[in-house]
Amino acid sequence: MKNILIGIAGGTASGKTTIAQAIESAFCSDDVVIVRQDNYYNSQDHLTFEERISTDYDHPNAFDFDLLKEHLKLLSEGKTIEQPIYSFNTHTRSNETKTITPSRVIILEGILSFADNSLVDLMDIKVFVETEADLRFIRRLLRDTVERGRTIEQSINQYLATAKPGHDQFVEPSKKKADIIIPYTDHNTVAIDMLIDQVRYIVSKNK
Amino acid sequence: MKNILIGIAGGTASGKTTIAQAIESAFCSDDVVIVRQDNYYNSQDHLTFEERISTDYDHPNAFDFDLLKEHLKLLSEGKTIEQPIYSFNTHTRSNETKTITPSRVIILEGILSFADNSLVDLMDIKVFVETEADLRFIRRLLRDTVERGRTIEQSINQYLATAKPGHDQFVEPSKKKADIIIPYTDHNTVAIDMLIDQVRYIVSKNK
Repeated sequence: MKNILIGIAGGTASGKTTIAQAIESAFCSDDVVIVRQDNYYNSQDHLTFEERISTDYDHPNAFDFDLLKEHLKLLSEGKTIEQPIYSFNTHTRSNETKTITPSRVIILEGILSFADNSLVDLMDIKVFVETEADLRFIRRLLRDTVERGRTIEQSINQYLATAKPGHDQFVEPSKKKADIIIPYTDHNTVAIDMLIDQVRYIVSKNK
Repeated sequence: MKNILIGIAGGTASGKTTIAQAIESAFCSDDVVIVRQDNYYNSQDHLTFEERISTDYDHPNAFDFDLLKEHLKLLSEGKTIEQPIYSFNTHTRSNETKTITPSRVIILEGILSFADNSLVDLMDIKVFVETEADLRFIRRLLRDTVERGRTIEQSINQYLATAKPGHDQFVEPSKKKADIIIPYTDHNTVAIDMLIDQVRYIVSKNK
């Protein structure tokens, strides 16, 4: 049995998680595992709280790509990992970890999934989710204000200060590395069904 | 048995034909048929030669979408069609037709495959092939000068006069209708294999 790694990149609120979850929910829980890049922000235990809150979470330097690659390699070798859990309250890793067992299909999703070339080399299928910037901002604003208790000003400020510059500098150019681009203005069931069929086909070949 | 229609759109020299042919060659000849939109330019029998040569072949008005839709519907109903053959020497339909027999998978490919909404509605999968404009121009220039005996000046003039304006006005905006976008800077074997696997999966389901 060969595992396959699907990388899903794309801007903030582009629809990456929705697509990853749609694939996951079409299979038995043993067949697909989602690895969220957000859990692989650097540990900031050595920094003061003031230093931690100035982190630019939209820059590749914020991520622990070495640990992420090590974990993806372990999963693809059929080994279990202890995944860090990042806390956005303490702005560092929490003391708990999450046990992730290997699956036939591993989906890595995150804005900067394609930012590290040796990580990209591990991927069998590279999917970039493309959604227009205004739609992404609107989705993010609703998520920030409705789900995360932030003010409109806080949401706009963070978007303009780091999310948009990071997108333009790192996320958008990484689209060039994609094998397929999925437009996600509305629910794109044809593309999701294609990915699901593709995963099903690969899983059936590897049985 | 349900037929499926895959529409492949994209700019001039983007890689549409290469992708369509790669899918076709992965299957028995009975399973896949390619319909080239270029064969559905309007008949210009009623025009003088001088009038014919002023045709803008990069504008949706140059195509006989009614006949194209009628033929795709007939093919999807399992019926044989007599496809027109367009002559770029006489700038109208030739006297011959080509007999096309129905297949499980019908691929329509052409720059303006997505230009007519009722045509788009017939498609099960809409693929847009995306290649940067400079690379497309270079491929087109080589094709024009090496394969078609045109001068560099003729190639550049036609590109600037109709191909580029038509692309910007009609082709590029039609990308919004795509289910998936395939970047085709280099040979994109992952995306082509995905499409082939997808077609294989659909064909196997419909057996």
